[in-house]
Amino acid sequence: MQLLEERIRKEGEVIPPDILKVSSFLNHQIDIGLLDKMAEEFKRLFDPAKVTKILTLEASGIAIAASVARLYGVPMVFAKKGKTSNVNDSVYSSQIWSFTHNKEYTAIVSKKFITKDDFVLIIDDFLANGAALKGLVDIVQQAQANLVGAGIAIEKTFQDGGANLRKQGIKIESLAMIESMSVDAGITFKR
Amino acid sequence: MQLLEERIRKEGEVIPPDILKVSSFLNHQIDIGLLDKMAEEFKRLFDPAKVTKILTLEASGIAIAASVARLYGVPMVFAKKGKTSNVNDSVYSSQIWSFTHNKEYTAIVSKKFITKDDFVLIIDDFLANGAALKGLVDIVQQAQANLVGAGIAIEKTFQDGGANLRKQGIKIESLAMIESMSVDAGITFKR
Repeated sequence: MQLLEERIRKEGEVIPPDILKVSSFLNHQIDIGLLDKMAEEFKRLFDPAKVTKILTLEASGIAIAASVARLYGVPMVFAKKGKTSNVNDSVYSSQIWSFTHNKEYTAIVSKKFITKDDFVLIIDDFLANGAALKGLVDIVQQAQANLVGAGIAIEKTFQDGGANLRKQGIKIESLAMIESMSVDAGITFKR
Repeated sequence: MQLLEERIRKEGEVIPPDILKVSSFLNHQIDIGLLDKMAEEFKRLFDPAKVTKILTLEASGIAIAASVARLYGVPMVFAKKGKTSNVNDSVYSSQIWSFTHNKEYTAIVSKKFITKDDFVLIIDDFLANGAALKGLVDIVQQAQANLVGAGIAIEKTFQDGGANLRKQGIKIESLAMIESMSVDAGITFKR
């Protein structure tokens, strides 16, 4: 998606070895107009799939997921990051390793809000090693719901999360795919 | 706001002594249509004030704040919850005591995203003892920005946060004001 790539090129900040900061429009300050255009692109890419629920992970997936849920006219559910001690019979949970923060957390979704009758489209801001997305897929599978696929704002294709999950047959659509990035050479997008 | 009060009455779950769970439409599963109507009501209540930025706190304020930012056509910024060790010269920060989780955290906003030229409308899901809102007001004041006011989805008026902050001259508009609640007697709204 050209509009997103342009914003990443203009405002993205590469922090070696593999962090891309997009705080000015995607995950600290949020440009809602951009998010709405991203949502339209997700809808185009996943049409004509039936979708009954949008699933994301707090906190930086919430705003994009809300824009997508509005377009589909369905509820959005965000998985909460909690401690394993918060897990009980009323929730689905999955352990996720955060490479950014170098620690494990538990993603938690109430069983009330995803059921086997749901068609779930996962939306998230980043896909790199795939840990967060794997956790969300795990929760959809625990619920025996139908997984429509995953819509990702920015995928770093030089990390292998996307490739591994696509091999499992999961439909993943990423709006900007970063093939390589460095402070000196800048950002190269995959076409 | 009648629509919100009806949803709280129908789906809200009172957990003694003072927790109200609204997970089915406001802070775990999200009803975007309801949020958009709430945003319209906030805009009506704060008109004709000039607003250049919406400020909220992750995670459950993000979706409502996004709806409000869309209506005003301005960026939304969410304060991140972090550790004091993440505080440095490039951010504003404020210590907030969470009564829900019985621990302190630090709300952090990059100095880049709120400046003295901004007219900031704070949006949040709950107002009870006022700790979170005080922290956000503190950040706006550190930035020497103009504080338009605070729009709150649900205020518990039997706790004193709202009264204390209004005494300081802060304009607070809450869409549902809970005067009392209990498992047996249900929820009473302030008129």
